[in-house]
Amino acid sequence: MKMRGRLITFEGPEGGGKTTQIRKTALFLRKKGHAVLILREPGGTKTGEAVRQILLDRKQNRMTPQTELLLYLAARAQIVGEKILPALEKGIIVLLDRFEDSTVAYQGYGRGIPLNAIEMVSCSLVRGVLKPDLTVILDVDPALGLKRGGRHDRMERQSLAFHRKVRKGFISIAKKDPRRCLVIDGALDKSAVFEHIRERVERVTS
Amino acid sequence: MKMRGRLITFEGPEGGGKTTQIRKTALFLRKKGHAVLILREPGGTKTGEAVRQILLDRKQNRMTPQTELLLYLAARAQIVGEKILPALEKGIIVLLDRFEDSTVAYQGYGRGIPLNAIEMVSCSLVRGVLKPDLTVILDVDPALGLKRGGRHDRMERQSLAFHRKVRKGFISIAKKDPRRCLVIDGALDKSAVFEHIRERVERVTS
Repeated sequence: MKMRGRLITFEGPEGGGKTTQIRKTALFLRKKGHAVLILREPGGTKTGEAVRQILLDRKQNRMTPQTELLLYLAARAQIVGEKILPALEKGIIVLLDRFEDSTVAYQGYGRGIPLNAIEMVSCSLVRGVLKPDLTVILDVDPALGLKRGGRHDRMERQSLAFHRKVRKGFISIAKKDPRRCLVIDGALDKSAVFEHIRERVERVTS
Repeated sequence: MKMRGRLITFEGPEGGGKTTQIRKTALFLRKKGHAVLILREPGGTKTGEAVRQILLDRKQNRMTPQTELLLYLAARAQIVGEKILPALEKGIIVLLDRFEDSTVAYQGYGRGIPLNAIEMVSCSLVRGVLKPDLTVILDVDPALGLKRGGRHDRMERQSLAFHRKVRKGFISIAKKDPRRCLVIDGALDKSAVFEHIRERVERVTS
């Protein structure tokens, strides 16, 4: 009987090194014989990529916080239904670049939308009962992370104060759910960061 | 002291003649000296028009019902915040081509998404306590309405069975809220339809 897949999400402020660590994690898991699928949010589907264009477009400068939230949730509902659930059913390990914690951190802690509204919509319309088996939060000071990032899209151009609230959001999320969340200092050496991840990834995939 | 504006929505299946009746209503109200703003959903804002492109794109053929719902709600949250509320505050009468009843009819009755989920999200993230002062539902048999419509976008290409469920949805909505909703047979002569509308419009705008 085939094992149900695993969902591992990578979260944290901009410039924490998610891309590198996702790549390392995929390499590690594939060497061990696992089927791995890497997806990014928002995007990863035709509909999601179209939504992503709107969200990151600097000309979309009148977007309300609620609209922004609903667009992220629309992209997520699509990737959950079209890609993540079918992959998990096939026993695939899904590595996901951002998921619900980013919404809670950016639109909840950052923009001030009530957390219970986000939870409620997510549960009833976006991901149902699906929860990550492991969430890696790469924590980094936004002042450093934004320099590293290099992109200059609509989200990255928010103020430093906004990105500080987002960072605090991720830390609060991890405190509420320590069994699921692993917080790592993203300023550490890349190999040192991956050592922490590897240990937890082995546990949830064995 | 300036009167708070009024929100009048026009709803119903495709091809019921909304556009014509909105134009007639605007002409009538403007002649009486009212400031009138005509808006359409989804769209009416830069963000909304971008979302509309995705929703009507025939190539978006894997979109889940939840994604579709969230995209409509995103467009609505934007038009409410950016256009409708500011206009109402200025005393303007807003004539709106589709609003929440369309979501309940198409994504609720049509696609089968629970009505309470739609209501909950709408209230907490989309329109708050805003409700139309009057809703005109132009009822028409989908078999006739779709012929009239002439467009062939993603929504119009749904099956006739789907559009029949939508039509029933509008009728159920009107039964639940008869004070707000005026149902008119869209197959009637255009002037006869407008006579019904004029009478109710006069009442809510005087």
